[in-house]
Formats: sequence, structure tokens, C-alpha cells
Amino acid sequence: MIQTMTENQIALLIIKALKDNKQKEFNRILDELQPYDIAQAYDHLPEKHKKRFLLFMTADRLAQLLEELNKDMQLEVLNKLENEKTGKVLDLMDNDDLALLLHDMSAEKIEGLLAGMKQSESRIIQNMMTYPPETAGRLMTNRFVWIRDYYTVREAVEKLKSFAEYAETINYLYVIDQDRKLVGVVSHRDLLIAEPLEVIQDIMYERVISAAVTTDQEEVANMVLKYDFLAIPIVNEENVLMGIATVDDLMDVVVQEANEDIEKLSASGKAIDFDTKAFVAAYRRLPWLILLLFIGIISGSIISGYEATLSQVVALAFFMPMISGMTGNTGTQSLAVVVRGLVSNDLNKKVVTKLILRELGVGVIIGVTCGILIALIAFFWQGNIYLGLVVGVSLLLTLIIGTLSGATIPLLLYKFGIDPAIASGPLITTLNDIFSLVTYFGIATMFISYLT
Amino acid sequence: MIQTMTENQIALLIIKALKDNKQKEFNRILDELQPYDIAQAYDHLPEKHKKRFLLFMTADRLAQLLEELNKDMQLEVLNKLENEKTGKVLDLMDNDDLALLLHDMSAEKIEGLLAGMKQSESRIIQNMMTYPPETAGRLMTNRFVWIRDYYTVREAVEKLKSFAEYAETINYLYVIDQDRKLVGVVSHRDLLIAEPLEVIQDIMYERVISAAVTTDQEEVANMVLKYDFLAIPIVNEENVLMGIATVDDLMDVVVQEANEDIEKLSASGKAIDFDTKAFVAAYRRLPWLILLLFIGIISGSIISGYEATLSQVVALAFFMPMISGMTGNTGTQSLAVVVRGLVSNDLNKKVVTKLILRELGVGVIIGVTCGILIALIAFFWQGNIYLGLVVGVSLLLTLIIGTLSGATIPLLLYKFGIDPAIASGPLITTLNDIFSLVTYFGIATMFISYLT
Repeated sequence: MIQTMTENQIALLIIKALKDNKQKEFNRILDELQPYDIAQAYDHLPEKHKKRFLLFMTADRLAQLLEELNKDMQLEVLNKLENEKTGKVLDLMDNDDLALLLHDMSAEKIEGLLAGMKQSESRIIQNMMTYPPETAGRLMTNRFVWIRDYYTVREAVEKLKSFAEYAETINYLYVIDQDRKLVGVVSHRDLLIAEPLEVIQDIMYERVISAAVTTDQEEVANMVLKYDFLAIPIVNEENVLMGIATVDDLMDVVVQEANEDIEKLSASGKAIDFDTKAFVAAYRRLPWLILLLFIGIISGSIISGYEATLSQVVALAFFMPMISGMTGNTGTQSLAVVVRGLVSNDLNKKVVTKLILRELGVGVIIGVTCGILIALIAFFWQGNIYLGLVVGVSLLLTLIIGTLSGATIPLLLYKFGIDPAIASGPLITTLNDIFSLVTYFGIATMFISYLT
Repeated sequence: MIQTMTENQIALLIIKALKDNKQKEFNRILDELQPYDIAQAYDHLPEKHKKRFLLFMTADRLAQLLEELNKDMQLEVLNKLENEKTGKVLDLMDNDDLALLLHDMSAEKIEGLLAGMKQSESRIIQNMMTYPPETAGRLMTNRFVWIRDYYTVREAVEKLKSFAEYAETINYLYVIDQDRKLVGVVSHRDLLIAEPLEVIQDIMYERVISAAVTTDQEEVANMVLKYDFLAIPIVNEENVLMGIATVDDLMDVVVQEANEDIEKLSASGKAIDFDTKAFVAAYRRLPWLILLLFIGIISGSIISGYEATLSQVVALAFFMPMISGMTGNTGTQSLAVVVRGLVSNDLNKKVVTKLILRELGVGVIIGVTCGILIALIAFFWQGNIYLGLVVGVSLLLTLIIGTLSGATIPLLLYKFGIDPAIASGPLITTLNDIFSLVTYFGIATMFISYLT
């Protein structure tokens, strides 16, 4: 009846099995649950039952459980396990999840954990840790199915069957030569359709799409987005097959990279989620805010340069928030279009020229529309046609430049190999702020005799 | 040698085959290419070769080509095809891609296209089109493998083989009863491990994770993110299996939804990419900008209410951009954390309380830090300790409120079923702008005698 039960009902069932010390019943329940659900159940379990919960679990299930938990919880579980079991569990964990767990740990602690593992497994992990974070080398698993090109379809199917339990994907069989170089790929689907005695050489794809160990994880994810593969083979510089990156991990990469783009665009600081402590979150957000504070001081000193103008026509201050707000926003709009566009577009001169001309067009259209509107409003509100003109023309100019800078600055940064999202959010806001103030007060000062 | 050629070399090879009118050679080249690469080759082909390119393609390949192209290109290809071939190609296209193509088309045009299709296929499409856009019903394909629970493993494998060419995924076999209700699922991997004479009933998972046809596509994508499935079964309200949503489509959903969040947070208007025309992009961006314009006028009228204060101490204007900029930014920071957090967190009272208290803590820490800093700067710059205090205390207060509003407003909107991203970006900026001006000038007015 587990299949129709709610999570709460299942949780009660699990607690009952733990209380009654019935391991069989416990396993019968867990058999029906997905690893994610088991992790949720563990997470919500009262503290006093957790020890026995872990004791009842097989090493296999514990490895799956660890893969689903966040880092804090992983460490909590590892602390509760006996040393001897820890090694077994880590052996069974996916390499990429284990590498992520060890990342940031002290060398001493890593050594302690790896000590309990099989040498062959721990060596693989140590090797993975030599690749830079967020590259394909950190993402890959060595649990793939490999075959040779002289195998028959039947032999390949046999190999697949013997790997089935262990492999991360059974959708592709990778063909390697005697030097472990990647020479082809056969999909499981093709095997099902082929005749048993056909030779792999004759049915394999030889134009294999692969990524290098040092490829950025976002690029690997983009390959899967384009090609709709369920896994991508990862090779070293000699085209030796090192591992595969699977779609589930790459989907997590897509989410992570989107979050990073948003964090950077909103300058919200790195890696703040619901569980981050207040002090840590404040510490991560402060650098941007302090930068903004000094930027604000620059704006302030520009205004102070026009103090004479401002004290003659205090009404000029009324339109300051509107002009800088709108210029900032139009810049952010262009920026967002460019940053996200870079995810799925390849850049060349033609694309860039077209994009910049388009943004210029957008700037002119919105500048003229908003400029006329605010000129009329300013005129009717303050009863001075010249004030209306000054505000309207300023807005027209700042919107055009705001749009253009929002498009060109990230493109320039991208060209020079700087992540456009991180540098350009606050950068564009600042530049636009400064430019809009100079334009506005500059024009106002020119026409000051008409304004007073 | 195609396997080691660059895209340009392959493009030349294709053009040569087209010029020499060699269909066999053409097909030999395309055999080695992925659908995405074929689409890229077609896209970059000189116009004069396109007609023959399409003529040489099998209906099967044309269907795959259409699935890879954007909407404008799809229509271009369909226009170039003969009517008779069009029907065949549409029959072979994935339902979800076809539904996306037909979306937004006039009823007349849809009828024209569906007319050439097999009745059974066109009926499925028409049925799909009755579900709201961006729901599971629009995403699903009916090309899944279904079995009955009394099948043996051997029978299931036979069924899978006969479906292999046609099915969108061969990773799962869905078990249905005589009313087509979903009662279980077996993974292909489990079949490989099981004995040939075992009965499906004994090895299937009965607690099937499924989504309803009306489920929002983002929610379905989240299920796949959580469970790492390669497909999710989609059922109607009677639990009848209607189709499956596959991971490749759901990965596209994740990207699309992340882009939408960014568009909304940056108020950049819907669906603007590199190919959008200037006039269309301006039209989509203008509503937000005009809204911001009127919001700017509100800020302006608040300042005008403090005209007396401002004309006595013009230096107050120097700190306006800094205060409103920082308050706006701190609000956006909190907002981004909450909006993206909602993607992966389930909300309950405990989580919300913790989150709001955390943000309050963050607000106090950054408020005190930045407040002290700006008070010192203002004092040394303007030589007035009271001005320093007014600016510092104002910043402290506005940063606390900015942080809190950035966290609470999206949560409130979410609670009332409004998308927090769309409503809260400009909303928070406005509220924070207005609040910061009132606080700043309010405090300044209170201490005006010390400032002059």
C-alpha cells in the first residue's frame, strides 16, 4: 500500500519499523522509495532515530543517500557512520558527487576519508581533484560502458548487461581502441535494432561529439542542450576516454549557472541560499554594497560640481531619481538580453554589429517616447517649458547611451575573456548613473538663464 | 574521413554533393552527422542550394531537422516542401515540437497543415493543443513504451525492441492496466538485470512518480531535477497515462524558465533575443520603462514636498543617488535570493520565519557597516558632523527596510499565487526608492537646524 501513501504516512511507517527494530520491514518500505524520497525522509526524521536509520541501510543505499544530501548533511551522516562502513560507502558513491563533497575540505580530512577506500577508487578521486573546479573533469564518472570495435552486437549486449547495475548510463556504449582512445559510439537503441552478428565497427558513429577534461562545465551543458544527448564522453588531450558526464549532473549545472548569472546581475554575492547564515550572507553581499557606496559618492561629487545650478533651480532635484532610475533600468534590460543571449549564441562580427544597431534603434525609440512624455509632464507640473525641454532632451540622450552601454560593455568584456555578468551589472549602473547626471546637469547649466 | 572534418569542410562536401546531384553521397555525409549539425549546415547553406537539400532528405530526417530549427526557419522549410511530403514529415515529428510550432498560428493555417497528416496523428496534436501553454500536456510525447503487469521480462524486452526505433526513451517501460491507468514502471536497467521468466508485476515500482497534464512545465522540470529521471509519465485526472515528458525537453524548460526569471528581475520585457527586431524589442520594453517614469515622478513629488529642506541644505542632494542606489540594490539582492530559492525549496512557516529573520540580520549587519562608513565620509567631505549622522542613520534604516522588503514582498506575492519575479523587481525598487527618500528627507528635516 506504500504506493498510494503520502510522505507523512510513509515517515510514520519508517519510524515504527525503527522503533520496533524491524530491519526487514524497514527495507521493504525503502524498496518502494526513490533515493530523493529516502533523503527527504532521513532529513525530516527526529534526531533520535537517525542513528538506527543509517545502521539499517545497506552501503549501497547509504551511497545513494549521500548523493542526495547537501554538504552539511553529508558530513553529519559520515560522522554517524562507523569508520569501516564509511570506506565502503565512499567506494560506492559516484565519483563526481564524492569529488564535490571533498572540495573545500582540508587535505588532512580528505586523507582520512580516502584512507578507508579501495586504492583503485581513491586514486580516481585524487586524480579528479587535480582538475579545476567547474570543469568537465570534476563532473565525470568512470562508470560507463566501453567496448571494442571488433565486438559483435551480441558481445556488446552481453558487456552492457554485465555493466548494467554499475554503469551511470546504459544509453551509450563507447568504443575505444587498444590505447583507450575514443573512436566511436553506439547507442543502446541502435544495438536493439541491429542484428546480433553485426560488428560494432559497421554500426558505430565515428564522428563522436566529446568534451575535454578541462572544458568549462557550462560548455558541456550547452552541448547536451544542443544535441539532446543523455551523456557526453570526456577525453584528455590525447583523446583517451577518461569518463562521461551525464545529463542529470549537467541539468544541475544549467540551474547552477543560471543562478550564478542572476547573482551576478543582481550583484547579490556568491552562493547565498535559504540555509546561509546571516553573518555569512552579509559578508558575501557587503563587497558589492561598499563598492556601490563609493560609486554613490562619485555621483554625489558630480552633483556637488553643479551645486550652483542646483541651488538656483531646486526643482532639478525632483527629476534626478527618474532620470538615473530609467537610465539604469534600460542598461540592465540590454545587459540581461546580452548575457543570456551569450548562453545560446555564437558571436561573430555580423551578429555583434546587428545587435548593437538593434539596441541603438531600441534606444532611439524608447528615448523619443519617454523624452516627449516626461517633457510634457515636467512642463505641466512645474509650468516651465524650458524645464520640460531640458528634462526631456536629457532623458532622450541618457536612454540612448544607457541602452548602448548595456549592450556594448558586456560584449567588450566577453571579447576580453571577462565574464560579462559579473563585471557589468554594477559597472553599467555606475557608468549610466554618472553619465546621466553629467548630461542632465550639463544641459540644465547651459540653459540655466531660461530656467530661473 | 568525415569524423575528423571541421564544420566548414563538411559544408563544402555537402554543397559539392548537391551541385553534382549525388543523393547517395549526400546521404552518406548526413549519416555521420547529428540532427543539430544537419540543422546548422542547412542554416548556413547558400539559399540556392536549400531546395535540393530538402529534396534529398528523407521524411524522417526532415522531421528531425524541423525539430532543431527555430520557428521562422521551420516555416521557411515547410513552405519549400511539397504538400504531400509535408503531411508525412509532420506525422514523423515529435508531438511536443509540432504543438510548439502550431502554437500562435491562425486556426486556418493549423487546419491546412494538419489536413495532410494521418488522422490518428493529427487528432493527438489537436488534443494536445487543448492544454494550456507551458503545461505538461504541451510537452509530452505519446512515443513511450507501455507494457502490462502480467508480461514476463522476456515479453517486455521483445516489446521494447519493437518500439525501440519509435520510442522517445527506451529507459523506462510504463506499466498500465486494462483501462490504460498507470500502475507501475520498470527501468530498462532492471530488465537487463532480471531473469527472462520473471513477471513484470514482481519487479516493477508501484509508487510511480508522475505529473498531471495540467502541471506547470517548470514543476515537471523540478521533478526531474530532484529525482534525476530521464522521463516523467504524464497522467490525466483519472491516472490514465497520456504521455511522457523527456529530460531533453525539460532541460530546455529549465533554461527557458531561468531566462524568464532574469527577464522579469531585470524588467527587460518578454522574449527578447538577438534576433528580435528593434521596434518589437522597444515595444516590449516600453511598458516597464513608462511605469518607471511615473514611479520616478512619484519620487520627484516626494522630494518636492521637502523643497524647503533641500533649498536650505543643497548638499543633501549629493547623497540622494547613493542612498537610493544602495537601498535598491540591497532589495534586489534579497529578491534574487528568494526568487531563485523558490525554484528548489518547499515553503513552510518554519522556512519562511527563518528566512525573514536571516534577512533582518543581514540588513542590520550591512546597515551598521555601511551607515558608519558613510557617516564618516560625509563628515570629512562636508565638514558637518550632523550631516554625517543624518546620512548614516538614514542609510542604516533604509538598508534594513530594503533587505526586509526584498525578502518579504516576493514571499507574500508567492503566497497569493502571483509570480514573485514579475511583480517584485520594479515593485521593490519603487517602494525602496520612495521609502528611502521619505526616511532621508524626514530625518534631515528633523535636524535641519543643525545642518545649516
